Amino acid sequence: MTPAELLKAMFKAAVDAALPQLCVPAHLPRRPKGRTVIIGAGKASGAMAKALEDAWDGPLEGLVVTRYGYRVPTTRLEVVEAAHPVPDAAGRDAAKRILKMVQGLSADDLVLCLISGGGSALLAAPAKGITLEDKQAVNKALLKSGATITEMNTVRKHLSAIKGGRLAKAAYPAHVVALMISDVPGDDPSIIASGPTVPDPSTNADALAIIDKYQIKVPDSVLNCLRTNEETPKPGDPCFAKVENVMIATPQASLEAAAAVARKAGVTPVILGDSIEGEARDVALVHAGIARQCAMRGQPQEPPCVLISGGETTITLKGKGKGGRNTEFLLALAIALAGMPGIYALAGDTDGIDGSEDNAGALVFPDTLARAETAGLNAKAMLADNDPYTFFKKIGDLLETGPTLTNVNDFRAILIENRLSD
Amino acid sequence: MTPAELLKAMFKAAVDAALPQLCVPAHLPRRPKGRTVIIGAGKASGAMAKALEDAWDGPLEGLVVTRYGYRVPTTRLEVVEAAHPVPDAAGRDAAKRILKMVQGLSADDLVLCLISGGGSALLAAPAKGITLEDKQAVNKALLKSGATITEMNTVRKHLSAIKGGRLAKAAYPAHVVALMISDVPGDDPSIIASGPTVPDPSTNADALAIIDKYQIKVPDSVLNCLRTNEETPKPGDPCFAKVENVMIATPQASLEAAAAVARKAGVTPVILGDSIEGEARDVALVHAGIARQCAMRGQPQEPPCVLISGGETTITLKGKGKGGRNTEFLLALAIALAGMPGIYALAGDTDGIDGSEDNAGALVFPDTLARAETAGLNAKAMLADNDPYTFFKKIGDLLETGPTLTNVNDFRAILIENRLSD
Repeated sequence: MTPAELLKAMFKAAVDAALPQLCVPAHLPRRPKGRTVIIGAGKASGAMAKALEDAWDGPLEGLVVTRYGYRVPTTRLEVVEAAHPVPDAAGRDAAKRILKMVQGLSADDLVLCLISGGGSALLAAPAKGITLEDKQAVNKALLKSGATITEMNTVRKHLSAIKGGRLAKAAYPAHVVALMISDVPGDDPSIIASGPTVPDPSTNADALAIIDKYQIKVPDSVLNCLRTNEETPKPGDPCFAKVENVMIATPQASLEAAAAVARKAGVTPVILGDSIEGEARDVALVHAGIARQCAMRGQPQEPPCVLISGGETTITLKGKGKGGRNTEFLLALAIALAGMPGIYALAGDTDGIDGSEDNAGALVFPDTLARAETAGLNAKAMLADNDPYTFFKKIGDLLETGPTLTNVNDFRAILIENRLSD
Repeated sequence: MTPAELLKAMFKAAVDAALPQLCVPAHLPRRPKGRTVIIGAGKASGAMAKALEDAWDGPLEGLVVTRYGYRVPTTRLEVVEAAHPVPDAAGRDAAKRILKMVQGLSADDLVLCLISGGGSALLAAPAKGITLEDKQAVNKALLKSGATITEMNTVRKHLSAIKGGRLAKAAYPAHVVALMISDVPGDDPSIIASGPTVPDPSTNADALAIIDKYQIKVPDSVLNCLRTNEETPKPGDPCFAKVENVMIATPQASLEAAAAVARKAGVTPVILGDSIEGEARDVALVHAGIARQCAMRGQPQEPPCVLISGGETTITLKGKGKGGRNTEFLLALAIALAGMPGIYALAGDTDGIDGSEDNAGALVFPDTLARAETAGLNAKAMLADNDPYTFFKKIGDLLETGPTLTNVNDFRAILIENRLSD
């Protein structure tokens, strides 16, 4: 196996570990005495519905909502498309139907929830007394306010008829099993799709206090809703005794799957983290520094080894080029490594699309910069212009998989073949 | 030992490993038959001269140049102060005297060179036919040109009467021993102080090609110098048979010294790299991600462990606050860790001064953010204002050592006490 083949096999293993057709069947609950109602939301939820249909031995009915373009053909379950990241009427209407669907069930019935990243925007059910437009206005104001993610989620959950455990409350006394694909740091089930089946310790009063703290301007209807509406269900609420939340795919599990491929090939895997964040080009500098340390000093790991990390980097756009987080990371990495022999890298988005283009990511070789120079490319200038897609396209090193219909964030692997003399 | 005590002991070990009074005596050559001439340049070179005086058993004479404010009292050796990073006449005159001092020696004589970071600017000896002002003009133009560090150094070496091995050439046939303290990634002796005792494979023609490639405007005298002056001595030049370049302190050796302290305390050290670069706050995010991975998954190392890294980060100033690379790193780290229990950190500049203030660095505790909030500080706003010095000063967590008179770059350590439940 060449270094590039190994890296590609690792990426494939990472994606496969998160594919609904593999991880949904592996986590199915027992068939209930009563009805089986499937609901769900998220970018992977269409593929999860299809996987469930194929694997489920018994009658089922239901509806999941996914992003425009992410539907897969199903025969027994309905899949609705809606807008992401800004919710639209299609998502709102689907959420309403989902809420209605889980009501009036008995203790013999099963509600199977197929939850994945993006589910929060796709499941936009405004709480009593407010409109979708109200929610959108609050969301915009929150994003500009300086509130933390936790604070924003506290407000959001209390403006929803379905999030913050309210779906579980609505489904009671049915048995609820939520199968979740995580794309959030720490795999906190209360954050994925804003936790429709997870207890919410925060209160309406907390939400009001946050609005006050950041002096956020919100419609009167929203204030009224927070002052008079019923609370989200709290930890200890009897409805949660009937709920199981199951992580069926996580960034960490995908990194572990890739690590197993490396280990089998005789290369020691070093998992640095499943939720590494930061500006892509600076994250690249740190990864380059660690890779150099392996090559020069055998620290933190003697080669042959492969550094593996997950999580989402960010890009502060300054140029006008094309690319995504992963190619930006790789171009900065190639420049930092400056052709160091024996070091190869792959970075890609496990959803198969890195940013705005059609590639999942790209690969870096020891001769990447040399080949680029021969092709007349100025690596530094192209990085400054945020044009890494063009860079890797022109030297033929893009990684293309097409959309994978799942998402456990980015995947990065840097292979260090040999110890170089110090 | 408390976590803070351990981290401080590790920092002390890192600095101690680079202190001239300890590492100069450990690397002294044998006393020569003939004269012993001491020369040197760099921020640590005053302290190196003092250490040499104290340890040297025999007659000696000589002159070293250090930065304004970095002189230490000596009895037998002369220490001259000059400007850094922009050279001045004091540095030029000292360099001239140094060159004269090493000429006309015999094969029985020893030239002992005390080289440390900053030596390049402090040893400003213009090549024949050009002035200090010419060199300064070229340097400014180079910095704006987009040329790589290697390209800039190629030009610089050919405009100097002392760099690029020319000092070794001048001292021939004397025996030359250069004791070096490294503050550069890779510890390349040809980069430290621009390699006065190291062969230079690059040529005058290379320097001219670089000036042409980047269309750098330089005075005619400079072009003339590059067209007619003698070449720098090349690898294989007989003068280098008489030269020994010895790294007496390096970032890596200091990290290893700190690692030994941790190991003795029962904490597994993980050296991530001796030359980690990148924007300080993003480098912090990556370090936080790795620390979280240790705490949550026992990867790449099971706690108790300590992540150790060296190298220089950068800061893109946007605010008006006070601070340096290390406090900026730590404030971003504290925010990213969000009070995660059992994680402590220290970051400091081994030269004892982090940026413009009087501290070497600071410490982070699990309750850093909580104590700051109690003190009415807004951590995020202060990071946005590049005001980490004020942040750590107000909560009493600055690390203060005073100038150490050596420099092996930054030192960062993050201690993870326990494995947290996943």
